[in-house]
Amino acid sequence: MSQTTQAIRNVRPLGRAEAADLLIEDERIAAVLPAGTAAPTLPTLADGQGRLMLLPALVEAHVHFDKSLWGAPWRPNSAGPTRNHRISNEQAVLKDFGMPLAERAAPLIEQCIARGSLYFRSHVDVQTVFGLAHIEEMLALRRRYAHLVDMQLVAFPQGGLLTVPGTAELMEHALDMGLEVVGGIDPAGIDRDPIRHLETVFELATRFGQRGIDIHLHDGGELGRFEIERIADMTEAHGLQGRVMISHAYALGAFAPADLHPLADRLARLGISIMSCAPGHFTVPPLALLRSRGVNVCSGSDGIRDTWSPMGNGDMLDRARLIAMRFGWSKDEQLADAFDIVSQGGAQALGIADYGLAPGCAANLLLLPAQNIAEAVVSGPLARTVISRGRVVARGGVFSADSAA
Amino acid sequence: MSQTTQAIRNVRPLGRAEAADLLIEDERIAAVLPAGTAAPTLPTLADGQGRLMLLPALVEAHVHFDKSLWGAPWRPNSAGPTRNHRISNEQAVLKDFGMPLAERAAPLIEQCIARGSLYFRSHVDVQTVFGLAHIEEMLALRRRYAHLVDMQLVAFPQGGLLTVPGTAELMEHALDMGLEVVGGIDPAGIDRDPIRHLETVFELATRFGQRGIDIHLHDGGELGRFEIERIADMTEAHGLQGRVMISHAYALGAFAPADLHPLADRLARLGISIMSCAPGHFTVPPLALLRSRGVNVCSGSDGIRDTWSPMGNGDMLDRARLIAMRFGWSKDEQLADAFDIVSQGGAQALGIADYGLAPGCAANLLLLPAQNIAEAVVSGPLARTVISRGRVVARGGVFSADSAA
Repeated sequence: MSQTTQAIRNVRPLGRAEAADLLIEDERIAAVLPAGTAAPTLPTLADGQGRLMLLPALVEAHVHFDKSLWGAPWRPNSAGPTRNHRISNEQAVLKDFGMPLAERAAPLIEQCIARGSLYFRSHVDVQTVFGLAHIEEMLALRRRYAHLVDMQLVAFPQGGLLTVPGTAELMEHALDMGLEVVGGIDPAGIDRDPIRHLETVFELATRFGQRGIDIHLHDGGELGRFEIERIADMTEAHGLQGRVMISHAYALGAFAPADLHPLADRLARLGISIMSCAPGHFTVPPLALLRSRGVNVCSGSDGIRDTWSPMGNGDMLDRARLIAMRFGWSKDEQLADAFDIVSQGGAQALGIADYGLAPGCAANLLLLPAQNIAEAVVSGPLARTVISRGRVVARGGVFSADSAA
Repeated sequence: MSQTTQAIRNVRPLGRAEAADLLIEDERIAAVLPAGTAAPTLPTLADGQGRLMLLPALVEAHVHFDKSLWGAPWRPNSAGPTRNHRISNEQAVLKDFGMPLAERAAPLIEQCIARGSLYFRSHVDVQTVFGLAHIEEMLALRRRYAHLVDMQLVAFPQGGLLTVPGTAELMEHALDMGLEVVGGIDPAGIDRDPIRHLETVFELATRFGQRGIDIHLHDGGELGRFEIERIADMTEAHGLQGRVMISHAYALGAFAPADLHPLADRLARLGISIMSCAPGHFTVPPLALLRSRGVNVCSGSDGIRDTWSPMGNGDMLDRARLIAMRFGWSKDEQLADAFDIVSQGGAQALGIADYGLAPGCAANLLLLPAQNIAEAVVSGPLARTVISRGRVVARGGVFSADSAA
């Protein structure tokens, strides 16, 4: 789009003391120069005045746009206490909600953009009760924002893959239609047959050309750990190294650190990413330990103001703070780790090759007032300027781009 | 100050559907009227246009203003891993910090006000290494904001009451100088002699005329529970019902709910409040259970950007969200509970008689755009108007009053 060269002037990449100018060309970073050396004649895309730090756009690696009621009036949570209650409640509420998916979810996508996320992995319910129309609506919504954001979609059998007849076939349709990633959910806890569930998921991924896999795993303790080990087995057997994510993985929070080392090492070897939202009311994977063993860790908002919970704001910088608070991280290095989880960790999990602040990377950027990354995580200022592909798309937490190219 | 009657027009008290007008007179709510009925000739203090909800100002029931580095440049955390390391690290850092307490903490008080808190209980380190000057500085800072906020100060023996000679005497000076509340800290974990520590605290409170007591209790599990039981014993023995707070009380998070009922009932009977910040990395008291047994629960930010941790923003609406997230609360009633903890619960703990939205209450108010209390807790909008004693003192998260009367 942007054919001319533009300059981002006098910003501090990653909060470093030395300011820099960036040249932006063809939606990419063309060069990183000492501050003050970009030609004054170039159009100025943004000027940090030596005060703003420059970050790569954030990565929302686990969200459920299709479930959100963000664009609807407030709706008190009506779900029962168990995961199965929440699934059936959601089906009942969303089946005839009277507001198209796009009206519910588009304002949320714009909120996420305004908070600085430009890379997404959204799960999309693949449920016979919702059918193909639901998937088409989500694909249309993705097209509407394709000029602004990169969005992967996961075919997610929320209601069960085996227990609800017709779901596996609907998953095939979804993958044919353009959803990239094969989802799964609690092979034991929801589908009641862990091995057959995982075999179905891995068989689908292999048959559709080595697709990525992303499995929701809430099953806890020894049960969840057993399933993680089987996911590792099948990742190896199907040659899907580097393409598998386990989301939530609460089970990993139930063991003593040393007891987890061999499993963590295996996850690292197989390139299996762990996604954690670091919720306060479940055991959570020990993210620092996993990272220290080489496991890639990313994060996401999970559901945002949906029938499961009204919580969430789509702000991955706030998520980095919540992660740090969940573990009591207070050192600058730990806060930088939290930032890494919502940026580079997500980019690696999603396989984004041109992510970062180096020449050649996409000009998907975030400018904000903070002395350094640690302060950015702690304070999460709303005074953010978001640049998508060389164009300012949000300022001060307010989305300002067109919602269709 | 405000001798004339002013009107707050067309706001929704506590987010109820029916809008109201309020008359403000002599720094108090004089009347609550149906919307549109306040005389048009009255000066308008604020106009919610039927859209803004009206809340009582928030209560920050546990903060350490004197420790904060809010007004200083970012300082990486340099503390060692244990509580004792953090205490000695703080002494070393703050002893010759080169910036007066007021410069560090005044901007934080203004931040707290801008986020909607107008009632505070701040602990003040009473340590021989800091001496009387530290206490005087904090008293001067309180005087500087006395026209805007109510602030109780706790004489807090951070370094140990028994283990550091001269501390008990310094506590007496502090209480003589105007600190209202007698503090304590981990009678076993820090002071290594739980009964003698508690006897000293209760004896001081009694001798100085039935002062309030506020004890930091991080000691966990059975040890902490033992100390809570002894605090209850002494509260009863000294006739200090309704005047004692236990802060943190992590120990209460270590027991099965039913096992806690008798103790919770006893705390309720004795009017002992529990203060919890709902941290992510410790066991936390089961706040819903405590409230259901009649125990008063309040909350606070604890340390905010200090040598212990850089976390914190002084935003008690954000704290309500963190409390809800810590427990997985998602129902409107649960989110209202979280709000109650940062408002009415704090007011009760601090003994604020004229708190609320009824005629006669102090005109300490918060206006913000949200459909109801649940949404206010979830979304915590920064677009807040804060009214202190009938005067607007902050808008949009920015402090706008004079810092001295």
